[in-house]
Amino acid sequence: MLAFQELGGKADQGKTMMLDKGLGLNAVSDLLSVAGAHITFAKFGWGTAATSEQDVIAAKTALYARHGITTYPGGTLLEVALAAGKLAEFFTEAKALGFTGIEVSDGSTTVAPAVRAQVLSQAREAGFFVISEVGKKNPALDHALTASDRMAQIQADLDHGAHYVLLEAREAGKNIGIYDEAGNIKKDMLAALTANGIDQLIFEAPLKAQQVALILQFGPQVNLGNIAHDEVTALETLRRGLRGDTVGRL
Amino acid sequence: MLAFQELGGKADQGKTMMLDKGLGLNAVSDLLSVAGAHITFAKFGWGTAATSEQDVIAAKTALYARHGITTYPGGTLLEVALAAGKLAEFFTEAKALGFTGIEVSDGSTTVAPAVRAQVLSQAREAGFFVISEVGKKNPALDHALTASDRMAQIQADLDHGAHYVLLEAREAGKNIGIYDEAGNIKKDMLAALTANGIDQLIFEAPLKAQQVALILQFGPQVNLGNIAHDEVTALETLRRGLRGDTVGRL
Amino acid sequence: MLAFQELGGKADQGKTMMLDKGLGLNAVSDLLSVAGAHITFAKFGWGTAATSEQDVIAAKTALYARHGITTYPGGTLLEVALAAGKLAEFFTEAKALGFTGIEVSDGSTTVAPAVRAQVLSQAREAGFFVISEVGKKNPALDHALTASDRMAQIQADLDHGAHYVLLEAREAGKNIGIYDEAGNIKKDMLAALTANGIDQLIFEAPLKAQQVALILQFGPQVNLGNIAHDEVTALETLRRGLRGDTVGRL
Repeated sequence: MLAFQELGGKADQGKTMMLDKGLGLNAVSDLLSVAGAHITFAKFGWGTAATSEQDVIAAKTALYARHGITTYPGGTLLEVALAAGKLAEFFTEAKALGFTGIEVSDGSTTVAPAVRAQVLSQAREAGFFVISEVGKKNPALDHALTASDRMAQIQADLDHGAHYVLLEAREAGKNIGIYDEAGNIKKDMLAALTANGIDQLIFEAPLKAQQVALILQFGPQVNLGNIAHDEVTALETLRRGLRGDTVGRL
Repeated sequence: MLAFQELGGKADQGKTMMLDKGLGLNAVSDLLSVAGAHITFAKFGWGTAATSEQDVIAAKTALYARHGITTYPGGTLLEVALAAGKLAEFFTEAKALGFTGIEVSDGSTTVAPAVRAQVLSQAREAGFFVISEVGKKNPALDHALTASDRMAQIQADLDHGAHYVLLEAREAGKNIGIYDEAGNIKKDMLAALTANGIDQLIFEAPLKAQQVALILQFGPQVNLGNIAHDEVTALETLRRGLRGDTVGRL
Repeated sequence: MLAFQELGGKADQGKTMMLDKGLGLNAVSDLLSVAGAHITFAKFGWGTAATSEQDVIAAKTALYARHGITTYPGGTLLEVALAAGKLAEFFTEAKALGFTGIEVSDGSTTVAPAVRAQVLSQAREAGFFVISEVGKKNPALDHALTASDRMAQIQADLDHGAHYVLLEAREAGKNIGIYDEAGNIKKDMLAALTANGIDQLIFEAPLKAQQVALILQFGPQVNLGNIAHDEVTALETLRRGLRGDTVGRL
């Protein structure tokens, strides 16, 4: 007998990083029961992990972990801790709260290359799954980064222990990194950043049109991030050719 | 004593089709307790019913059914099954999962008119509530359909057993069917498609401005679809003249 | 040991009014556990409190009250009741449902100044926390209000018992009050309306860019309203300098 699951392409070909910007336990439970199999990473966006009680954060990381999902606090929070000279304490608290990953970024602050390299190494030594992020949250600053600058940063991060490198696009997906002001892909920038392959890259792609474009170009195995929690299932249908935009095109 | 419910116009004058694109049981339970009385159909959008475990889908259809709501998988999933030569199995599985309705469309694929007619008949014979959809998900293809083409399809679908005909607008509500690129109504197209009445039509109208315009033109009895789950209550206030846009105008 | 909560600025400096447009109990429970400490007011938007069963509304107000949050039905519902000559019954029912606040507005209807003054006084005498709202929901009507008109209304409302005055922006935040068609702040209008201080004003600011601009101009103590339920945590990070837009700028 046919199960609906047999329709469409193979499941879960690429990594999916979901943005959790303050979900409660009922919502996380819902999400995991419906789409837990399709989530690789849950990022507690920017500083959101600092505005709830510790027991709620710990309960959430535990719930995600039970479904094999790696959780990590947003890079912005690490940047704030780093600027305050509290990196070691940050790692300790992250571990205490049940986070299994760490994101290292300089999207909101300036971090010297040597410091960045050291943070990546320390995070890895502390036993975290390590993801770095390349790009600036302020579009004016981000536009000053050339494709070469970004490629050099990607390579340096991988050399210093990052398991994956995120290409910054923020929650809105516009006017940063590979996207123009309307959220469309800048083809030249994308081509340049993927010249060495895409296996260790995660494209932040919050807008559906971005997800469609990247899946059509690279296939369902492309790694995508900053997926809204209520778009995880929809993304999985795109990857499997079960939504109009990708039916018969994969 | 006044109950707030006595304020505003009559409740539930038109059918409301809500788009469920991957809700969990807590969310469905919330929705039904707050707005269950205002939902006629719950569509499990496009192929989303194929990416969750069967027991979750079955639990959801059962919950909707307990509130008298007709559930059905998106037409895209039926199209994929049809293209794979598995229509009979599709009906069997839909029934096993507790779906009480079927949507027949050709939004993502090409379906010969004779096949479409047969699918509609078979769905009805199998005991489903049958809804067809007119329009293409790709705007370029959709623009090739004239008002006459659509009217002919609507009539053919009703002749072959459709209880209602949906006018396609996708989740985004732009650049398809009766809507232009900004999501505004194309008045000529709307006038042409409603020349024979609106009783058996359901207008996909995901944007609030579309809901307002259609309610002001046709009254609260107009049937509306692709309503986001968190807009069902808001739509009901529009229908009853309890939101600024329709206060005193119905 | 560092707790993440010690990172960033002080918590909860300004009042936050959240828009509840039909949440269920699971969602409210989620919200309160994650961000209950950061919510001052929960507005049951426009007429939404009239389209659910009374027991659900009462259960929600009770849940919010347990977290010290003031709840109130949208001003539109009061306007409809007032136009129907049922103001006293409206207050009675609001109290029976557990609402502890009342919003007095004329966004959707015309209310004579003397009547408005009386409604404010009556609401306050009935023991409600009283918030008035200044602005029209129809942009054409709203544009006819000068800064002086609005200032006079604000002062009159405070004189007649309003604890706070909301500056109308609707759920969409565009083309009304201090915002232009794109949702950007009209600097002249804002300067005029804040000439006497901002302590008793609540700026409806549903869009993130509006929240950022107002926090950067007035500091984290600015009172903000019409915050979507799933943006409360994000707003708190903005107030505390834990999101890229405000890191190091407060």
